[in-house]
Amino acid sequence: MLAGSPRGESPARRKIAASKAASTVARVKRNEIVCDRDGWETVSTVQHFANAHLEVLTDSVRTPLHPQPRSWTIAHRKAAVVIAPMTRDGKIILIRQERIPIRAAIWEMPSGQIDRGGAGKQEIQQAALCELREEAGYELAADGELIALGYFFSSPGFTDEHCYFFLAQPVEPCADFVRDETEAILDCRPFAIEELRRMIAENEIRDANTLGICARLAARGLLSLDPR
Amino acid sequence: MLAGSPRGESPARRKIAASKAASTVARVKRNEIVCDRDGWETVSTVQHFANAHLEVLTDSVRTPLHPQPRSWTIAHRKAAVVIAPMTRDGKIILIRQERIPIRAAIWEMPSGQIDRGGAGKQEIQQAALCELREEAGYELAADGELIALGYFFSSPGFTDEHCYFFLAQPVEPCADFVRDETEAILDCRPFAIEELRRMIAENEIRDANTLGICARLAARGLLSLDPR
Repeated sequence: MLAGSPRGESPARRKIAASKAASTVARVKRNEIVCDRDGWETVSTVQHFANAHLEVLTDSVRTPLHPQPRSWTIAHRKAAVVIAPMTRDGKIILIRQERIPIRAAIWEMPSGQIDRGGAGKQEIQQAALCELREEAGYELAADGELIALGYFFSSPGFTDEHCYFFLAQPVEPCADFVRDETEAILDCRPFAIEELRRMIAENEIRDANTLGICARLAARGLLSLDPR
Repeated sequence: MLAGSPRGESPARRKIAASKAASTVARVKRNEIVCDRDGWETVSTVQHFANAHLEVLTDSVRTPLHPQPRSWTIAHRKAAVVIAPMTRDGKIILIRQERIPIRAAIWEMPSGQIDRGGAGKQEIQQAALCELREEAGYELAADGELIALGYFFSSPGFTDEHCYFFLAQPVEPCADFVRDETEAILDCRPFAIEELRRMIAENEIRDANTLGICARLAARGLLSLDPR
C-alpha cells in the first residue's frame, strides 16, 4: 500500500533548486568525498524529512552515464569514524553495543559520528580518539600511533554515509574511565586475532564497520584473517 | 536550522501503536533477523516517510539494558544479497556501477534488493543468482555451487538493512547476455585476488558490501587478503 502512494509521503515536501538548497543540503552532502564533479550534477532537491541524525531527500541528478536527470531518494548522514584499537600484545578491543534499528546487541569496533560537517583531518582524528575513550575506555599509549586507513561507504545505493577507518596502536586502558550510563554499551574486552577471525567466520561479527575495517587491515598487512 | 526543528519534520506524521502498525511495518521490519524478542519491545511507531525503497520511522523501544522506552529514528530497508562470483581460475568478477547517493562510480561485487519481505532460503538464493546474471552477465557453471556465507548489517546505528552473502563458484559468462540499458553499470571484468587486495588496501574498493564479503571469505579460508 505504501510503496509509491502519495499518502505515504509527506505533503510538506519542498522542491528547491539545488543552488538555493545549498544551505540546507551542505551540512550532510557537500564535503570533499561526496560532491558534484566530473559530469555529476544535482538539478533539484526535494526534502521529505530531517532531524539531527538523518535527512531524507529526493534528488534529481545528471550522471556521466545518464545525462537525462534521474530521481533518487537518499538518506543523508553525517560522516563517521571507526577505530580498530590494538593492544601492545596484538589483541583487538571490541565493544558489545545495543543497536536499536536491528533489535540486537552486537560485538563491534568503537565508532561514532563526526558532529561537524566538512571536518578537517585533525578534527576527524580527534573524533576517533574521542570514541576510543568514550566507548572503549582506552587511549593511545605515549608511544602510540593513530594510522589512517581511508574510508568506506556503508550502503551507497541509498545513503551518502561514509566512515573513516583508523588503527590505534598500541592502546592502553584509561586510568580514570567511568562509562557514560546513557551509552548502550554492555561489555568491552580484548580479543585475540584468531578469536576475531572465528567470530567473523561464524557470523557473530556482522556489522559493516567491523567487517570493513578488518578487510582493510588485512589487505594492508596489519592483521591476518587467514585461518591458522 | 533543520536539526530538531518541527519545520523540518512532516506534519503528516502518524503515531500508531505498534500492534496496530504491524501491517504497515511488517514489510521491512518483521523478519527472522530483525524482530522484537529477548527483552526488546516496540512500544510505538511514528511514520515520517515511505516510498518503494525507504521507510523512515521513529520507534519508541524498550531494550534489555534500558527498560524505559527510548526514541530512535530508523531507516527501514528491504533485505539484500551480495554475491562474490569466482571464476574457475580463481578470479573475482566485479562491476563498476554509478551510485547516485555518493556521486561516484565504484568497483564492487554484484548485489541487489530482495523484493519480497520475509523471503525464504530458496527465494534469497534465487535473488543472488538473478543479480549475478543481470548485473555481471555471469551464471553458475553446471558443476557450480552457491555457498551461503551468512549476512551483515550495513549501518546498524540507523538502518535495519541487512545483506546476505554468497560465494558463487565457479561462474561462467552467460552466452546470450545483453545488459539492461536502464542499469547504471559501466564495466564488468574479472580481477585476480592480488589485484582485489591492492584495490582494498588503496581505498579503490570502498563499499561495505565488497569489503564485508571479502572479510567473511578470508575468515572462512575461501580467499586470502594477506599481501604476498
